[in-house]
Amino acid sequence: MPSPHDPPASAVHDAVRRAFDEDLGPLGDLTAALLPPEAAVAAAVRARSDGVLAGGACATEAFRQIDAAVVVEWRLVDGDRLAPGDVVATITGRLASVLTAERTALNFLCHLSGVATLTARFVAAAGGANSSTRIWDTRKTLPGLRALEKAAVRAGGGVNHRGSLSDFVLVKDNHLAGVSIADAVARAKARWPGRTVEVECDRRQQVVEAIDAGATLVLCDNMTPAEVADCVALADGRVLIEVSGGVTLDTAADYAAAGADLISTSVITQSAPALDIGLDLEG
Amino acid sequence: MPSPHDPPASAVHDAVRRAFDEDLGPLGDLTAALLPPEAAVAAAVRARSDGVLAGGACATEAFRQIDAAVVVEWRLVDGDRLAPGDVVATITGRLASVLTAERTALNFLCHLSGVATLTARFVAAAGGANSSTRIWDTRKTLPGLRALEKAAVRAGGGVNHRGSLSDFVLVKDNHLAGVSIADAVARAKARWPGRTVEVECDRRQQVVEAIDAGATLVLCDNMTPAEVADCVALADGRVLIEVSGGVTLDTAADYAAAGADLISTSVITQSAPALDIGLDLEG
Amino acid sequence: MPSPHDPPASAVHDAVRRAFDEDLGPLGDLTAALLPPEAAVAAAVRARSDGVLAGGACATEAFRQIDAAVVVEWRLVDGDRLAPGDVVATITGRLASVLTAERTALNFLCHLSGVATLTARFVAAAGGANSSTRIWDTRKTLPGLRALEKAAVRAGGGVNHRGSLSDFVLVKDNHLAGVSIADAVARAKARWPGRTVEVECDRRQQVVEAIDAGATLVLCDNMTPAEVADCVALADGRVLIEVSGGVTLDTAADYAAAGADLISTSVITQSAPALDIGLDLEG
Amino acid sequence: MPSPHDPPASAVHDAVRRAFDEDLGPLGDLTAALLPPEAAVAAAVRARSDGVLAGGACATEAFRQIDAAVVVEWRLVDGDRLAPGDVVATITGRLASVLTAERTALNFLCHLSGVATLTARFVAAAGGANSSTRIWDTRKTLPGLRALEKAAVRAGGGVNHRGSLSDFVLVKDNHLAGVSIADAVARAKARWPGRTVEVECDRRQQVVEAIDAGATLVLCDNMTPAEVADCVALADGRVLIEVSGGVTLDTAADYAAAGADLISTSVITQSAPALDIGLDLEG
Amino acid sequence: MPSPHDPPASAVHDAVRRAFDEDLGPLGDLTAALLPPEAAVAAAVRARSDGVLAGGACATEAFRQIDAAVVVEWRLVDGDRLAPGDVVATITGRLASVLTAERTALNFLCHLSGVATLTARFVAAAGGANSSTRIWDTRKTLPGLRALEKAAVRAGGGVNHRGSLSDFVLVKDNHLAGVSIADAVARAKARWPGRTVEVECDRRQQVVEAIDAGATLVLCDNMTPAEVADCVALADGRVLIEVSGGVTLDTAADYAAAGADLISTSVITQSAPALDIGLDLEG
Amino acid sequence: MPSPHDPPASAVHDAVRRAFDEDLGPLGDLTAALLPPEAAVAAAVRARSDGVLAGGACATEAFRQIDAAVVVEWRLVDGDRLAPGDVVATITGRLASVLTAERTALNFLCHLSGVATLTARFVAAAGGANSSTRIWDTRKTLPGLRALEKAAVRAGGGVNHRGSLSDFVLVKDNHLAGVSIADAVARAKARWPGRTVEVECDRRQQVVEAIDAGATLVLCDNMTPAEVADCVALADGRVLIEVSGGVTLDTAADYAAAGADLISTSVITQSAPALDIGLDLEG
Repeated sequence: MPSPHDPPASAVHDAVRRAFDEDLGPLGDLTAALLPPEAAVAAAVRARSDGVLAGGACATEAFRQIDAAVVVEWRLVDGDRLAPGDVVATITGRLASVLTAERTALNFLCHLSGVATLTARFVAAAGGANSSTRIWDTRKTLPGLRALEKAAVRAGGGVNHRGSLSDFVLVKDNHLAGVSIADAVARAKARWPGRTVEVECDRRQQVVEAIDAGATLVLCDNMTPAEVADCVALADGRVLIEVSGGVTLDTAADYAAAGADLISTSVITQSAPALDIGLDLEG
Repeated sequence: MPSPHDPPASAVHDAVRRAFDEDLGPLGDLTAALLPPEAAVAAAVRARSDGVLAGGACATEAFRQIDAAVVVEWRLVDGDRLAPGDVVATITGRLASVLTAERTALNFLCHLSGVATLTARFVAAAGGANSSTRIWDTRKTLPGLRALEKAAVRAGGGVNHRGSLSDFVLVKDNHLAGVSIADAVARAKARWPGRTVEVECDRRQQVVEAIDAGATLVLCDNMTPAEVADCVALADGRVLIEVSGGVTLDTAADYAAAGADLISTSVITQSAPALDIGLDLEG
Repeated sequence: MPSPHDPPASAVHDAVRRAFDEDLGPLGDLTAALLPPEAAVAAAVRARSDGVLAGGACATEAFRQIDAAVVVEWRLVDGDRLAPGDVVATITGRLASVLTAERTALNFLCHLSGVATLTARFVAAAGGANSSTRIWDTRKTLPGLRALEKAAVRAGGGVNHRGSLSDFVLVKDNHLAGVSIADAVARAKARWPGRTVEVECDRRQQVVEAIDAGATLVLCDNMTPAEVADCVALADGRVLIEVSGGVTLDTAADYAAAGADLISTSVITQSAPALDIGLDLEG
Repeated sequence: MPSPHDPPASAVHDAVRRAFDEDLGPLGDLTAALLPPEAAVAAAVRARSDGVLAGGACATEAFRQIDAAVVVEWRLVDGDRLAPGDVVATITGRLASVLTAERTALNFLCHLSGVATLTARFVAAAGGANSSTRIWDTRKTLPGLRALEKAAVRAGGGVNHRGSLSDFVLVKDNHLAGVSIADAVARAKARWPGRTVEVECDRRQQVVEAIDAGATLVLCDNMTPAEVADCVALADGRVLIEVSGGVTLDTAADYAAAGADLISTSVITQSAPALDIGLDLEG
Repeated sequence: MPSPHDPPASAVHDAVRRAFDEDLGPLGDLTAALLPPEAAVAAAVRARSDGVLAGGACATEAFRQIDAAVVVEWRLVDGDRLAPGDVVATITGRLASVLTAERTALNFLCHLSGVATLTARFVAAAGGANSSTRIWDTRKTLPGLRALEKAAVRAGGGVNHRGSLSDFVLVKDNHLAGVSIADAVARAKARWPGRTVEVECDRRQQVVEAIDAGATLVLCDNMTPAEVADCVALADGRVLIEVSGGVTLDTAADYAAAGADLISTSVITQSAPALDIGLDLEG
Repeated sequence: MPSPHDPPASAVHDAVRRAFDEDLGPLGDLTAALLPPEAAVAAAVRARSDGVLAGGACATEAFRQIDAAVVVEWRLVDGDRLAPGDVVATITGRLASVLTAERTALNFLCHLSGVATLTARFVAAAGGANSSTRIWDTRKTLPGLRALEKAAVRAGGGVNHRGSLSDFVLVKDNHLAGVSIADAVARAKARWPGRTVEVECDRRQQVVEAIDAGATLVLCDNMTPAEVADCVALADGRVLIEVSGGVTLDTAADYAAAGADLISTSVITQSAPALDIGLDLEG
């Protein structure tokens, strides 16, 4: 059954296909071609460190694209916690097929689980799953992997900011050349009625203007926790407050304590180290 | 002029196109649509931390795909060192176009410069550009970005291991089920004459067998520097020695001192944090 | 079993894929993600007005691309008459999958059934299925939907004019700059031997020339029924007579009575209103 | 200069490419191949009825893809009013190229101008450009043409509802199986913080619930103008009121008078007749 | 200026792109990367045997896709005769670019000129350019190269049979299970009015039936020249006579003398040896 | 079970898809549409001349893409010898589907079996399967078919040279402008460590330089068998000796006798005549 964390199936299919287009070359897997074609194998995908799983649909698709007869059975699903040694999935099928698909399947699992894992650490730092402060991703994703990384953020307990420039309006300082916040928000609401309108603010006065203009969200950029707390008080529930700009695992708790609704960070998609997950042949 | 670090132009074109397919959506940039269409801007792409530049061709292509009239002039090129504040490129053109393309251009620059920067740190740790020990990448790249990441590794002073499974033969332990190293290498040389044949070895005896079998390269997997030095002595120039498995910036110097020809690491592609590079509007 | 009205399966696959590329975005269906993943549903696709069905293969493919476990059973097939309340198909499967695919499946059904329905009205106006005057489509189709719309025309009882510029020769007045009809037809027969050659004619004398030149078809452009009857008499079975240019449901019978072999109209593809077909959840 | 009504350039490029993939076939334009290759032509794209222009970027791209040396000069731009005889653009270039591209260019112009024209009629019916009631499109677009049709709606003075399922949340009755509106909205706001949440309502009580739950928008489905006026009063500015379901050119004014913020209609994209625009060779 | 022999530009673009997708790999041209990036070169594309040129548009596109700054100047064009030593084109540009594109450009030129050359030999064998017997190609083309090979046949003086299954009707014996030729032709004319209908005939009686049924073309399959002459007499200009099945350069003249309108052969596309064309660096 | 001769499945899929994109057109198979939709058939794919089979995976995929219900059972597999009359495979399914797919399936089988057959003749000429001289292909493949042709070469008993420019280094005379062989090889080994480096040599002295420089392979270009024997003696097992340039079936034995390790020829991919294989409907 598809998980609610899953990205669209077409995104999974295409990303896996591109990965094999890179990896197979015109001659295919030179090394696997040396193996006896009839040799079969059972294998386990196993976690080698602590973390959160993501990318399961991609790994399944990777084995399928190489050989539809390979069977992948998942013991754990996206969003589950991993400890070293945990068996994530079992794989059975032709040895040559399994070895040809292995690296591609793991490249997805390791990267996306890395994203989920770092997201989960930020979630924990901001007070955990029940905190009123949520971890938000950004558009700073690795090119071609946005849908997959956004799904991995969800698997890690985070939530998704804009999926694309076409989702909602985010007025940054560069958009305000010669235009007041009030005018910019009014134009946004006129041109794109009903849509979320967010305004990036560097200082208190801008937050006041954004709230008065009827923005949906205020992005507090590079503010201290105290400044954020002030903005939260100003907002008084009329807008959501996003904190952005250099928030770390160390400072997330302070911003949560300041009452921010959302802490956004590019680190979870752009700079998440790969999680160590491997494939072990059995017996 | 194309740089020797550049990936194939078709790879650049397609990766940028996919990034915009993710980012534009059916409505395009809602926020940029609010700007006066005729407004023009000059901007600078500026480094905000130390590192090595990569991804220039992708950034150029990003602005070009949004608006061919945007002019991008590079002050620095892939492979150049960056310090905070350095102007990497200047951008002039329509404000709406520049802001629509900004994030995509930076996503490439920040990720690929991150790869180049971490590669350069490993190169330095292994004795620098003139060391006889080189930093080698792996097939553990982010799906869809291999050609670009491999180019970024070159920009960082590293060298490229296999581009795909179709480049050369790499016999790992999983390929040896019931087959001796001698037989595996002989098969490889018979089926793929003239090609590089590398053998993954966990212990001294396997290295002896691989050399005797006529392998081109030996991958010393998870060995200590002392064990590697022993393998280097065994090899005596007849094969190249690759060290793989958990080499860090701290241990790279020891493996270089042990005489390894190549140190491979997945960290530089799979876990390189984004380099901080931004775009500042001028005046 | 595929119907003879079906477009090529690859055209169906690709058109549906493009529709989902437009509709899913990087985050997928935000609303369906709120549903319990295990909830299942039975639903009926039901006609809400009179018409002719087309687009069944596209609707099947739409549900399949979202979730291969959704079962679509057709009660009616392309070309069948519809009355308000008719159950066209039943759908069973995961609620989230059915709701995500619903709009796309219906967009195909409603548009293509609209094409078939309007075609059938023109067929009836020209004397019905057994009339010697047939309804012909044109190359004025909606971009990207030609194969599907041409199949819908067949479902509505019409026949297909050129599928592409590469099918046969159609000499229009713009092609005759400084060249006689005789010369143009001779060139066409020399360069593309065996192919259909049609000549657009505005007046009687051109029809004579086209027949004498050995054209296969004459397109009578913007002529009255009386003028057409004259051309039919001239043709005397040696060429087929196509009537084109502003024929309406009101005037089609007159042109049929004039003996035209073919009445072509762009209205059936370019301006057919969507047929009202909906999806109702059961129980 | 790109117009703010323009769809993303990549959407234009791909739609035109697909149109030619349909139209050229393996042999290209059989008829144009008969023309003298060196013959040149000047032509005018001319309106043949009243309406509003849209699709200019597609027409330009169509000529460019066939022959980059063809020059297209626009006298009017998307959003401009058209009267019969108005010259929309002039075209100069090789005769064979112009005739090969003609039909494809016009297919885009006629369909998209048809969308813009019908939109403009609805805008006028709802009180015109300065009315507080706006015309909203839907996801009932022709498959593969969404970005272009949404741009044509903007050219006609309308505004855009969701571009995709990934834009914002729209809870319809089918999404409410066993769940209260309050719960559904709460889930939506928790899972997709900051996003627009719209609720489809059939009756007054649901509107009350949706407002209380904190929805952004209420879709009044198949209500009379009087019922809508009641909902507008209930809303009192706290939510936007969308009217949907069978609104026609005749009834739009009544719904506008009732104070609806938005009138959505699928007719403008799904059932807009093509606008008559042709290409005339000069002298 | 595009030549009338040219395939559609999109077919050229895509075929060249696929060729580079095969040839560049993730690392690009390893050998060209060793060259000084600034080195420039002048080169000549030169025929090394007698033949007919085809594929010029593909070669131009190949250099362009690698480096738009490479200049290709054609001295000869598709359809021109070649003798050993003839300079076909001159190339100037970066050495690395020219060498990277060389093989792909030549692969197109050598194969397509091979097709044109063998076609020209068949044309000559059938009486030359002014013969009333023409050389016709088939659908037995190399997969993915149909548009290019059909254009090369035209360059060689041949003409094109069906471009696709969608062009016209060709009733072969396998299509006649339980159906008379008369019925099959009648169905074809009813379902696809105005289209060419060809009937494959093994013997005289079938030819009579096909002519009586109103076929456009008769394919005389594996008949002797005498049998063909009989069919030509039977046809008496009412249908065109195609000869098919094992016609060789040696027997073509006999079939031409028998009065066949068209001789079709798969050899010219499926089995044409590459023409020897090379690239020489100058001075 | 996939054969070790098989190309990557994605290459098979895409090549077949492209073939149908060429062959189906917007209207599909006009002739098959005339057949009774329910008619079924059994058919045999049968060799009509001696040769070696290749392309089985493509033929299977062709029938599958048209109609997944068609059953293809292989009696012989890629690499098997064929004699006239041999049944290669049996096909059962809908008559219309089988006839629509027939030509495309055969186009792959005939071309690729032609490649395998000619390769096998060269292998035999060079001493057979156990000869120490192997037949090597080249990059002179037909555009878009490289992976398939390289697999066919393997089926014919040959081996594969470079799959792409990204596999290994091959220094030709054009790469040596102003650079010694020693320097070129040194640069290659420095930039691409561990990779095969081959050097094209026209004369004995270059062979000495290449061996001294540590090349992996020497390409003896246009040398006589006696000159090759001299190079083999010089090489003394330190490098592999490739013979290239105009080797024919008549001269291959002499080069094998001279001790060449590899004989490369473009003829087997660029100029292999199609093998005659047909499809016969059964009783």
